[in-house]
Amino acid sequence: MGALLKFGALLLAAVAACVAWEDGDVWDYDGHKLKDSDFLALWPLPQKVQSSAVSFQLSASRFQFTHAEGSSAGSDCSILQNAFRRYFDYIFGFTKKDRDQRRRNAAGSEVLELQVAITSPDAECDGFPSLTSDESCECGAAPSSESSPPVIAFLTQITQNINKTGVSDFPRFAHRGVLLDSSRHYLPLKVILANLVTMAMNKYNVFHWHISDDQSFPYVSRMFPDLSQKGSYHPYTHVYTPADVKMVIEFARMRGIRVIAEFDTPGHTQSWGFGQKDLLTPCYTGSSPSGTYGPVNPILNTTYDFMAGFFKEISTVFPDAYVHLGGDEVDFSCWKSNPDIQKFMDQQGFGKDYSKLESFYIQRLLDIVSSTDKGYMVWQEVFDNGVKLKMDTLIHVWKGNEAQYQAEMARVTGAGYRTLLSTPWYLNRISYGQDWRDAYKADPCNFTGTDAQKKLVIGGEACLWGEYVDASNLTPRLWPRASAVAERLWSDQGVRDISDAYVRLVQHRCRMVERGIPAEPLFTGYCRHEYSGV
Amino acid sequence: MGALLKFGALLLAAVAACVAWEDGDVWDYDGHKLKDSDFLALWPLPQKVQSSAVSFQLSASRFQFTHAEGSSAGSDCSILQNAFRRYFDYIFGFTKKDRDQRRRNAAGSEVLELQVAITSPDAECDGFPSLTSDESCECGAAPSSESSPPVIAFLTQITQNINKTGVSDFPRFAHRGVLLDSSRHYLPLKVILANLVTMAMNKYNVFHWHISDDQSFPYVSRMFPDLSQKGSYHPYTHVYTPADVKMVIEFARMRGIRVIAEFDTPGHTQSWGFGQKDLLTPCYTGSSPSGTYGPVNPILNTTYDFMAGFFKEISTVFPDAYVHLGGDEVDFSCWKSNPDIQKFMDQQGFGKDYSKLESFYIQRLLDIVSSTDKGYMVWQEVFDNGVKLKMDTLIHVWKGNEAQYQAEMARVTGAGYRTLLSTPWYLNRISYGQDWRDAYKADPCNFTGTDAQKKLVIGGEACLWGEYVDASNLTPRLWPRASAVAERLWSDQGVRDISDAYVRLVQHRCRMVERGIPAEPLFTGYCRHEYSGV
Repeated sequence: MGALLKFGALLLAAVAACVAWEDGDVWDYDGHKLKDSDFLALWPLPQKVQSSAVSFQLSASRFQFTHAEGSSAGSDCSILQNAFRRYFDYIFGFTKKDRDQRRRNAAGSEVLELQVAITSPDAECDGFPSLTSDESCECGAAPSSESSPPVIAFLTQITQNINKTGVSDFPRFAHRGVLLDSSRHYLPLKVILANLVTMAMNKYNVFHWHISDDQSFPYVSRMFPDLSQKGSYHPYTHVYTPADVKMVIEFARMRGIRVIAEFDTPGHTQSWGFGQKDLLTPCYTGSSPSGTYGPVNPILNTTYDFMAGFFKEISTVFPDAYVHLGGDEVDFSCWKSNPDIQKFMDQQGFGKDYSKLESFYIQRLLDIVSSTDKGYMVWQEVFDNGVKLKMDTLIHVWKGNEAQYQAEMARVTGAGYRTLLSTPWYLNRISYGQDWRDAYKADPCNFTGTDAQKKLVIGGEACLWGEYVDASNLTPRLWPRASAVAERLWSDQGVRDISDAYVRLVQHRCRMVERGIPAEPLFTGYCRHEYSGV
Repeated sequence: MGALLKFGALLLAAVAACVAWEDGDVWDYDGHKLKDSDFLALWPLPQKVQSSAVSFQLSASRFQFTHAEGSSAGSDCSILQNAFRRYFDYIFGFTKKDRDQRRRNAAGSEVLELQVAITSPDAECDGFPSLTSDESCECGAAPSSESSPPVIAFLTQITQNINKTGVSDFPRFAHRGVLLDSSRHYLPLKVILANLVTMAMNKYNVFHWHISDDQSFPYVSRMFPDLSQKGSYHPYTHVYTPADVKMVIEFARMRGIRVIAEFDTPGHTQSWGFGQKDLLTPCYTGSSPSGTYGPVNPILNTTYDFMAGFFKEISTVFPDAYVHLGGDEVDFSCWKSNPDIQKFMDQQGFGKDYSKLESFYIQRLLDIVSSTDKGYMVWQEVFDNGVKLKMDTLIHVWKGNEAQYQAEMARVTGAGYRTLLSTPWYLNRISYGQDWRDAYKADPCNFTGTDAQKKLVIGGEACLWGEYVDASNLTPRLWPRASAVAERLWSDQGVRDISDAYVRLVQHRCRMVERGIPAEPLFTGYCRHEYSGV
């Protein structure tokens, strides 16, 4: 017997998928084969699954991962080696001894090996995942000799004989993100890393790091150290050092996750003002400065000099091809109060239309960032205000009710821009009961538009804004509610059965809990191993 | 110099109070004396506080707790010894070294000793707290000789000179409870113990253990082991053994917390049916049993034999003078469907009024429990249905909107019964934003009634029902929202300033976080030491 796991490219989120249904659910307490409901607890649901009642067994002492002949990645590929370690632990970590004992007298149907084949010429072992990475995965069985038996590992539950392919999988959307906000509350590294682990379990491939905002600036800039020195909650304990940022990026890379940093301007920047003189607009009461500050000052050349330096640094620190530039919720009242701004408005012929001033700023910022060879994501206001955008700009829709965001998706794609959706997935908003269902039902392609328009939808992001969230409650608030979004973004558009989703998600949630993640319960019930923290 | 801490009786929740403001907030990072806002972060706010700018210092290597002359408790009092250990750790645990170094050159104003005096003749060192325990506390300074200097310890922040009393405190209500539900989800012991610790920090004195319900029966009964063997989520991993229950009670006792068990009947008992034959009413479809079961079967003698045996056990396992008998939300549809029940109704002359049948059951149950020398608490329906109750019965109000529960409080106290309130404190219900404020604003005495009626209000309970809560999210969901309720139940009725409460509660919440409790944030901001878990 033999088994083969084929990836388009080396994206470990895909590994997570192909392995997911095995973890801890294959044998129950009494060593019985899985019930159907257990078996079907795949999350997110793969595009195609062929299942069978035939079961194989695994032994921690005999099982191994191998590189298939012809694979473009071998044992020098650290991403794969890391994945092997993780998944070996997931499979055998919990009930190792127990399983081994049971399996000793069942050698005939034992799975000894999982061959991994990377089919694309570039295995991306040392590179970073990108928007165009191939995340497809074929999990199946292939013939082999008895003497050196490569055997189905993760596929034992779904392969009737070695000639049948078990799973054929690929994501519906290329951009599947989670936004975490480390400004309203500082998020210790441990929390970020734990959530990257959980993102991988849910096949998310983008960590949108909303790193700065009004409340604090925790990013330690090498070029402008005063930003965090003076703008963070605490310059030593509540900051992300260059080493921290590097670790987050590498930890994410190992799991097929891109890190897209957001440095939101010109609004949401109060914390920047402490460490960068003259960056923010002085607000006025009558003819005198009030002592308070507004958005970034868009009329000074020093502002653009600073931004050029700052985003040059960002472009080297964050390897992803995109940077998120924010651009949302600019409050015009301070600009309006400032006589210098008023004069500038007159000179530019903007009249009283401050959105033109906003666009003026954004336009110059985009030019600056373009010069660093990065693409950019922006919140929808930038598009709404008519700023001239490069056609590869990603427009991030977040506002309005259902009808409004659907209309916005239609407008953005109608103008030929690629877009992603977050409006229905502001998971910081909570309500009593099973609110994961609303998140599950929303669909980014539910709007009136042509097929060409729908193709411009690259995905979406679950957002967990930080006003009421920090290390104490982030993880259970995010999971498994974000899992609902994950399936919407990965699985086929037709996967919408809420009852079926409930059954699978209950088990997927227990799988997260059993891996040490305090994902909250959907409803009454239990996990075999409850969360062991407090 | 000298200091004295006097308790009416030995209730360590009171110790918690007198000590609370010291913990970790006395010196800031730079060794500066507390800002006023820090100093005032007492929670719940004591009845009387006299403060001063004069500061004293503490040294971990020199400070000690002692028993004051004339105290009715000495070093053989394990409750006090345990409290000393806890509070020493709270005071010096975090920044021990640091503090010692700072203090070495300030011996003149150093606090070396805290004398503890228990003034009531019975120190209750080996007893259990009760509804009538004296929780009052005087924290002040008393003269002493230079040679053997008993010094103010926790009072350094509030005592201008040794002749002044710092804090005079007592609770507004005698019953201040938290309900946890271990049936909808099993709560590992660790979670229960951690929340008892947190309850003590917030001066709660009742743990209302809603131990069983429809979903599972985790209580291991010595007399009826099948109840948990067959009615729990899992008979080994999801149960509370006699040793577990004992540990919870003892752990609570050490913290001045009573444990009141609730075994809710005749509704909410689906899980009882698996391990106790014929206990539940068989439901009928037409003239045949449907295979499903309803509430406890009130027409069989075997039911009352069982209840007599069961509650006899409960009366010995749980030492508190009260047991909560539930009695809420009885669904009559199954009773109505059952021909034997119909016949019984006719015989008894109940007509079609099934609340009379419910009362018939409850009446007999109350007689059974009375014979065990326990008092009982019941949910308000039992009173609403006109069941004859002993005058020491506690009526637990939980239903309706504000007007409705206020009217109910008026009716219950008008009938001469003591009552406690939970309606506005169903903390399982969540909404986006600072919903602690609604909990804080509610007041159990806000109803139309005489002074005599108001005196019958013994307090209230924050309830965290378990449908959507387990070990993964219980603690951050409960705290600091339950802290808001705690202050309402402890502090003077006039303590209602929401802005002042916010400032203190933010710091109190950080105090909980710094002691390892994942209490969630109220709003943006930070703690000096963030929660270190995930």
